Amino acid sequence: MTSRFDFQIHATDGKARTGTITMRRGEIRTPAFMPVGTAATVKAMKPQDVRASGADIILGNTYHLMLRPTAERVDRLGGLHDFMGWDRPILTDSGGYQVMSLSELTKRNEEGITFKSHLDGSRHLLSPERSMEIQRLLGSDIVMAFDELVPTTSTRDVQAAAMERSMRWARRSRAGFDSGGEHAERAALFGIQQGALDEALRKASADALLDIGFDGYAIGGLAVGEGQEAMFGVLDYAPAQLDPARPRYLMGVGKPDDIVGAVERGIDMFDCVLPTRSGRTGQAFTRSGPINIRNARFAEDQGPIDPECGCPVCGKWSRAYLHHLVRAGEILGAMLMTEHNLYFYQALMADLRASIADGRLTAFAKDFRNRYYARET
Amino acid sequence: MTSRFDFQIHATDGKARTGTITMRRGEIRTPAFMPVGTAATVKAMKPQDVRASGADIILGNTYHLMLRPTAERVDRLGGLHDFMGWDRPILTDSGGYQVMSLSELTKRNEEGITFKSHLDGSRHLLSPERSMEIQRLLGSDIVMAFDELVPTTSTRDVQAAAMERSMRWARRSRAGFDSGGEHAERAALFGIQQGALDEALRKASADALLDIGFDGYAIGGLAVGEGQEAMFGVLDYAPAQLDPARPRYLMGVGKPDDIVGAVERGIDMFDCVLPTRSGRTGQAFTRSGPINIRNARFAEDQGPIDPECGCPVCGKWSRAYLHHLVRAGEILGAMLMTEHNLYFYQALMADLRASIADGRLTAFAKDFRNRYYARET
Repeated sequence: MTSRFDFQIHATDGKARTGTITMRRGEIRTPAFMPVGTAATVKAMKPQDVRASGADIILGNTYHLMLRPTAERVDRLGGLHDFMGWDRPILTDSGGYQVMSLSELTKRNEEGITFKSHLDGSRHLLSPERSMEIQRLLGSDIVMAFDELVPTTSTRDVQAAAMERSMRWARRSRAGFDSGGEHAERAALFGIQQGALDEALRKASADALLDIGFDGYAIGGLAVGEGQEAMFGVLDYAPAQLDPARPRYLMGVGKPDDIVGAVERGIDMFDCVLPTRSGRTGQAFTRSGPINIRNARFAEDQGPIDPECGCPVCGKWSRAYLHHLVRAGEILGAMLMTEHNLYFYQALMADLRASIADGRLTAFAKDFRNRYYARET
Repeated sequence: MTSRFDFQIHATDGKARTGTITMRRGEIRTPAFMPVGTAATVKAMKPQDVRASGADIILGNTYHLMLRPTAERVDRLGGLHDFMGWDRPILTDSGGYQVMSLSELTKRNEEGITFKSHLDGSRHLLSPERSMEIQRLLGSDIVMAFDELVPTTSTRDVQAAAMERSMRWARRSRAGFDSGGEHAERAALFGIQQGALDEALRKASADALLDIGFDGYAIGGLAVGEGQEAMFGVLDYAPAQLDPARPRYLMGVGKPDDIVGAVERGIDMFDCVLPTRSGRTGQAFTRSGPINIRNARFAEDQGPIDPECGCPVCGKWSRAYLHHLVRAGEILGAMLMTEHNLYFYQALMADLRASIADGRLTAFAKDFRNRYYARET
């Protein structure tokens, strides 16, 4: 019999930990980076190549999938895993973030959020119960609680009210998830801590979540423009407010140096569109900082994107070729840049895990930052 | 020592032949289909996947490459093969067709064609000598003579004059190619028959080319809107006007049923953007005719694109998933549709070769057409 959800911490180094989450669809090595597969595809990547890059789990977006092809259709087609050809764990977000950032809201109250689709203007409701239903229909392995987000520029009162509503919705999410029958016996549910940049609100949110009880805990509401210093400020205390025996997931983060700093502060899981999105626009990550492959200085550069990279792209194609492809708007440019960036992220996570296991994370992080910031463009 | 260019015919069936072209970069099984790699990439495909589909040779476009990244840059970077990561033969066209269809002409005389780039308006000359130089700088394996094209609606006099100029240019192409030093010892040069739909002009063109002498002969000026019946009309006599011991290449063709009919009429080589271009817009080829995967009837169709297809796409993903990807404008949709279509074309070529070898081409072609036309949409 395989485990529904088990988290073993193998080693710690300062606040950082490395471990393994075991689920029936596979193991997730932590700290883990989850590539984003918004609309049932990690953009410009075949799932087998996502796996080959080292990903143990990917993320799917409830908001996008509920609108197209719809959760009901994915369910009729056998679930998201079969549909897209990815047989390992999938974490789905709750839709709360995208509904706020992508759609036109028509109603927002204790029940949930009514909105118009950005695709066709059709009207939809997202509530804790509906979000749980959608994530169940998708066949998600790690389900996220549905929460309410407010702008970071809101007053403390507004932030407090949104956090408190999110905690009530967390309880409804728990109930909705638990009523999901067979799916609830196979999947896991994560709660999401809110509270903006306020330590007391964060503590109240953590306590509310711990009282409900979840398989893991996400830190939400960060990486939304507050800057790395403010984010790290929260991460200096927020992880310790959560259950140390459970995975801590920092949603929507981030840049490589964000990830290194967050791992040092005790984060176990990450997701971000950066490696995929920036790959499509010509940004490549290297250990000496990001480069824009469109830059004229790469036009006849016969070296690989990153001489230290062991990815299939760096083993075969030059910066000059990628420069040409991206400048010409060729799909292959998006494919190869994305593949390299996903490998870069997964290699970074592997190095972080090994550094923690060997008790040398501080030295690794210092060396990483020294080199990474030396040539950021 | 490997052969510069050798063509062995293994079997004939009616006018059709199957054989092998041997060059130092590899063998080309004929009848052969060459995927088009316009700008140093078969769009949306990694070169190793192009090879895995069964392609022995690809085509590169002189016009596109001379403008971006430029032939001189490709040369400095080690040639087109190293640049794009394809180590098997590449045929390059002469630029004559694209310069007429894509650019603004500023001068056109016996010397050549001066034009403005469609990318940045810069001014360039294409002449037989410059076309040979560009194809040499690219490191082409099969170089095409530079010819002059006129609209199919032109009068016979205009067509005759263009054909006659093309034959003078063919002689200059031969001289330009032969002065290419080491490259001329490794590569092959094909002449291009012109003469529109006129048998006497075609004969005169063929005689002029045979007098010059080439490694292979292309039939040019077809598949430009004249329709399949008119094209087959020319193919009923044109191949026999050329050297039976040399490969015959029908440029820019075509639809699967065009290819079957042309093979029956003695054609050995083809190129066409159809499998790649139509893949990006949602058309998939099947043995029972093309389908448009965007069609609503595929939204929940769990079958593969073509149940008879052995390609990696049909082995893993459903019509429903491809429908979703293409509708959502996802890059993976273009990737998978293109891959399937290239496999379809190569599987068709393999079947044609086997049918000729077994002396059953007529039966194969009849069966192919019966099924293919039964559900063309």
